[in-house]
Amino acid sequence: MDRATLIGIVGGLGLFLWAIYMGGDLKAFINIPSLMIVLGGVMASTLISFPLSKFIGVLKILKNVFVEKSVSAEEIIKTIVRLADIARREGLLALEETAEQLEDDFMKRGVMLVVDGTDPELVKNILETELAFLEERHKEGQSIFETMGSLAPSYGLLGTIIGLIQMLSKLNDPSSVGPGMAVALITTFYGAFLAYFIFNPIAGKLKVRSRQEILLKEIMIEGILSIQAGENPRIIEEKLKAFLSPEIRRSFKEKEKESAESGDSLAWR
Amino acid sequence: MDRATLIGIVGGLGLFLWAIYMGGDLKAFINIPSLMIVLGGVMASTLISFPLSKFIGVLKILKNVFVEKSVSAEEIIKTIVRLADIARREGLLALEETAEQLEDDFMKRGVMLVVDGTDPELVKNILETELAFLEERHKEGQSIFETMGSLAPSYGLLGTIIGLIQMLSKLNDPSSVGPGMAVALITTFYGAFLAYFIFNPIAGKLKVRSRQEILLKEIMIEGILSIQAGENPRIIEEKLKAFLSPEIRRSFKEKEKESAESGDSLAWR
Amino acid sequence: MDRATLIGIVGGLGLFLWAIYMGGDLKAFINIPSLMIVLGGVMASTLISFPLSKFIGVLKILKNVFVEKSVSAEEIIKTIVRLADIARREGLLALEETAEQLEDDFMKRGVMLVVDGTDPELVKNILETELAFLEERHKEGQSIFETMGSLAPSYGLLGTIIGLIQMLSKLNDPSSVGPGMAVALITTFYGAFLAYFIFNPIAGKLKVRSRQEILLKEIMIEGILSIQAGENPRIIEEKLKAFLSPEIRRSFKEKEKESAESGDSLAWR
Amino acid sequence: MDRATLIGIVGGLGLFLWAIYMGGDLKAFINIPSLMIVLGGVMASTLISFPLSKFIGVLKILKNVFVEKSVSAEEIIKTIVRLADIARREGLLALEETAEQLEDDFMKRGVMLVVDGTDPELVKNILETELAFLEERHKEGQSIFETMGSLAPSYGLLGTIIGLIQMLSKLNDPSSVGPGMAVALITTFYGAFLAYFIFNPIAGKLKVRSRQEILLKEIMIEGILSIQAGENPRIIEEKLKAFLSPEIRRSFKEKEKESAESGDSLAWR
Amino acid sequence: MDRATLIGIVGGLGLFLWAIYMGGDLKAFINIPSLMIVLGGVMASTLISFPLSKFIGVLKILKNVFVEKSVSAEEIIKTIVRLADIARREGLLALEETAEQLEDDFMKRGVMLVVDGTDPELVKNILETELAFLEERHKEGQSIFETMGSLAPSYGLLGTIIGLIQMLSKLNDPSSVGPGMAVALITTFYGAFLAYFIFNPIAGKLKVRSRQEILLKEIMIEGILSIQAGENPRIIEEKLKAFLSPEIRRSFKEKEKESAESGDSLAWR
Repeated sequence: MDRATLIGIVGGLGLFLWAIYMGGDLKAFINIPSLMIVLGGVMASTLISFPLSKFIGVLKILKNVFVEKSVSAEEIIKTIVRLADIARREGLLALEETAEQLEDDFMKRGVMLVVDGTDPELVKNILETELAFLEERHKEGQSIFETMGSLAPSYGLLGTIIGLIQMLSKLNDPSSVGPGMAVALITTFYGAFLAYFIFNPIAGKLKVRSRQEILLKEIMIEGILSIQAGENPRIIEEKLKAFLSPEIRRSFKEKEKESAESGDSLAWR
Repeated sequence: MDRATLIGIVGGLGLFLWAIYMGGDLKAFINIPSLMIVLGGVMASTLISFPLSKFIGVLKILKNVFVEKSVSAEEIIKTIVRLADIARREGLLALEETAEQLEDDFMKRGVMLVVDGTDPELVKNILETELAFLEERHKEGQSIFETMGSLAPSYGLLGTIIGLIQMLSKLNDPSSVGPGMAVALITTFYGAFLAYFIFNPIAGKLKVRSRQEILLKEIMIEGILSIQAGENPRIIEEKLKAFLSPEIRRSFKEKEKESAESGDSLAWR
Repeated sequence: MDRATLIGIVGGLGLFLWAIYMGGDLKAFINIPSLMIVLGGVMASTLISFPLSKFIGVLKILKNVFVEKSVSAEEIIKTIVRLADIARREGLLALEETAEQLEDDFMKRGVMLVVDGTDPELVKNILETELAFLEERHKEGQSIFETMGSLAPSYGLLGTIIGLIQMLSKLNDPSSVGPGMAVALITTFYGAFLAYFIFNPIAGKLKVRSRQEILLKEIMIEGILSIQAGENPRIIEEKLKAFLSPEIRRSFKEKEKESAESGDSLAWR
Repeated sequence: MDRATLIGIVGGLGLFLWAIYMGGDLKAFINIPSLMIVLGGVMASTLISFPLSKFIGVLKILKNVFVEKSVSAEEIIKTIVRLADIARREGLLALEETAEQLEDDFMKRGVMLVVDGTDPELVKNILETELAFLEERHKEGQSIFETMGSLAPSYGLLGTIIGLIQMLSKLNDPSSVGPGMAVALITTFYGAFLAYFIFNPIAGKLKVRSRQEILLKEIMIEGILSIQAGENPRIIEEKLKAFLSPEIRRSFKEKEKESAESGDSLAWR
Repeated sequence: MDRATLIGIVGGLGLFLWAIYMGGDLKAFINIPSLMIVLGGVMASTLISFPLSKFIGVLKILKNVFVEKSVSAEEIIKTIVRLADIARREGLLALEETAEQLEDDFMKRGVMLVVDGTDPELVKNILETELAFLEERHKEGQSIFETMGSLAPSYGLLGTIIGLIQMLSKLNDPSSVGPGMAVALITTFYGAFLAYFIFNPIAGKLKVRSRQEILLKEIMIEGILSIQAGENPRIIEEKLKAFLSPEIRRSFKEKEKESAESGDSLAWR
């Protein structure tokens, strides 16, 4: 579970409910037609903007906002170093058995290509093409939420304009201006709230998640190619650690020492 | 038929008609001069911004928003693998007959270049130039709708300002402010609605369609060049599958098995 | 004459005059000080933003918005194929005489470089540098109009704020609010109209024209280099046709047949 | 201490307090629920947009806005020239001892790679990968503040809309419109103030700082690779000085002369 | 003196003073606290955004907006051709004496590197690095004014909101609404005027100047490297002229003829 998403949603919602409750009646902020104009308009425009399959795929993407990836860069580096050790001692073919147990599909596929004796240039080509298209698919997912985030305030304003036209065109009683205006403004409120609190932050987190996942895959590609080139496991480790931030690198060394002391039971996954 | 576009347009229009009907009279939202200012202004500015031929070409482009391409990446890969098989067994010249039956003009042209014994570097050069210009033409089409999408709210506001100036300059009766304002706001409503519901989503879908088509053409170029290089059909398949998403790749394998069982009648188009 | 620009300007102006005339008095929309604030402010800011020579050069650029280039990509390709034929049959030096008759300065210069026996690498270098700077000069012209297009609504608002301050600071008679406000809003109207109807569309058309011209020059460079390399005229034609859209390519073939039947009198310019 | 940040914050705050105090009561600008809506909303959306670790890391980043880096490009160049001198006279291995005393971790790591006899290509690869990821981490830090800077005015407006809805929906007494509106506007004030005075400037300074640090690291990489290549210390100095601005280069020469006169006690750190 | 800047500032100011004077009292537009909020806020935020040294360096940059560079591309090309002539006839070492008299520091430095027998690759490397950092320093200068240009309207609005809050929170007398509002709007006027008339145009001109200067330096680099390569002065001239626009190139030829007739006294600087 991604704690930041959870804290943000629960905390933010609580705060707004409290702030509205402090200033008056919550009921003044509930208006079903307003909500339908904003949500319906956003959905309709998004459907016209994207293919149906991408639109439906959104729910699957949403999962990534709430679930945190449990694999860390350190674990991947350790796995690669281990694979490099095996390859060095027993040859590339010996990797087949270990590769079967790898959890990550991308890495398994890469190692299997190496085991199959594929040309290094082709291995690189295949893995990088796959990564490029993974990145593009991620961007499509983000762009759906970015589109929704820019549509929501627009439809909010559109709803308010509809409300204003209706109110103004039958203006007999000046005392009804205030409440009529309040109702018209609720659509703007919904649109802004959905955009700033839901759609844009989701697009933001998807972007961060995507960059993390792509970093991991870049480490894998670099590692797999180094294994295939028969490089020294120590040098591979040194190279891959350049991908890490200094803090993680430091904690990496400490854990390494611990695991060296307690046997390398921890290093394997 | 692109179902997403259909659902979006029908659903969105229904929703807005219902929402307006709920709040009052539909007639208050019909104003021909307002519509003419927005639509006419958008058309006029677009005509000044683009050459006449591109402006007229818009209708042809619009078709792409409603019609879904029926060719999938999988079918193209299968076709390429089949062509590679033929080329391997019977030589590049044997491709001529099969190439004649290809539906896609781009692919046919590419295969014919190979059959004609054109230099591989030149084949690549010609196909990539063509793809680059295809992409540029697509972008021009999108940019017409993007321009319209940014002009519509602007002319909507312009119309409202015109209405306000007219209303304010002959302000005798305060009670006429409300209805006058309502009429002035309708132009803003038209401009915003056209932009968020029509022009921008169309530009969005054209962008997605363009990317899909270019991906297919990239697969074709990669495949044709591999065939010309005399690569192994299995390796070509492996390479091209890196362009696919994991889900499609998986369904690809399953279908492959099925078609292997039922003969490859399905694999060919 | 560029018909799109003409239709857009005449049609748009007629539409707005009609729409304003329908709603009231045209006189309410004429205010010389407002026009001077917008136009004068835009001019002043543009003068500070750009060198004097570029600012004066604007009038020359404007011509491109109204005049359509009469040279088409097909004609250029035909000319290049013809030059390639001559070069093949009679040698590169034989191009000198024909080059003298070329209308396009860029192409003439390129062919003369080839005739002079300049090193191919240097020919490419010189022509591409020239093209790069042509593109940059085009962008400067566009950016002047883009700057004007973003300044006009800003000065429109500024003028309205000036009008509001003047009206509000001497507010004795509530009945004067309406007309005062109307006058203040005219500046916003002028600013928006100039931007959306004049400056932005001009910048847009300049951009399209620039891309067309650069495409033609790219075809020329490719062609000239191919001629110098002594390539087969048929292959040069094939290569250059990749720059064309499928529609133009098809019409190109048809015309070619016709001209083949009626002698190639048409193919030359 | 970064004096510019200090002067800006103290001066700006003083100015605003004075300006508000001049125009009326400071109390009218204090409203805890408004502040909570803006700050709370910004925090909540930022938490959903970014991983928890990045959000918490913000405080550490903030330090960079207030503390000025004391290492200058000149000192780094001097250090590199000195290292090059040692490497030339006593060999690359002699650098080990001096490297131990280097304060900068990045440079120490680079020199140690050279001392260890790592392949030059790999040294370059490792250091550039590290620099690329340093830059990306910097950008993440900036983007958190940029996100906050774009969220703050949005939540300010949202709070004002909430206030307006509450005020308008229970509008009995026209005389309460003014004060109610004033309270609603305070949220907009908070949002704008936080964005323009705090979040955006912080993002700006982080960007400048990042560019400075990366420039220093680029000088280090260039220098370390030149040392490894065994280049002449004078030529290395000449090369690295191209990274400096003419002013710094001039002051560099003067200081050099001074230090040459007074012994090179100053040149070392 | 840059005439465009002068005409723009004097003309624009005159126009606005006249327009304001026409509509009422100039005094209504003078409000010291409003000016202080806008200018002070902009200064404070800019100080937090940039290092103190850059902020102070702004005054030096401002000079470039008013002073026009007197060196033209033609003169630089003539100088380079002359240097190439000398190098051809008397050898690269003979350039030393002439280089001493060059006014441009960048060119002098480049020629001296050539005279010193530096490796061509290194000369190119050093000069291009210097140019890249020159460009970056220019961009920093521009970005300070762009930041100010985006801050000014923001602080203008902020000041207006402060004014509105103060006015609304003590609203007893409805007749004071107008003048109070007028005072509040003055801050918006100041902010918009400073941005559109001062900060943004200055950033614009700096950008144009920067591009011009970089173009000149690119010509110098190309020329110096060609001299070092011992190329024919005529070919160098041909190459460098590709950097010029057709108009300048034409006037270049005419002047050349004149100077050829009257001796080359004019060609040298």
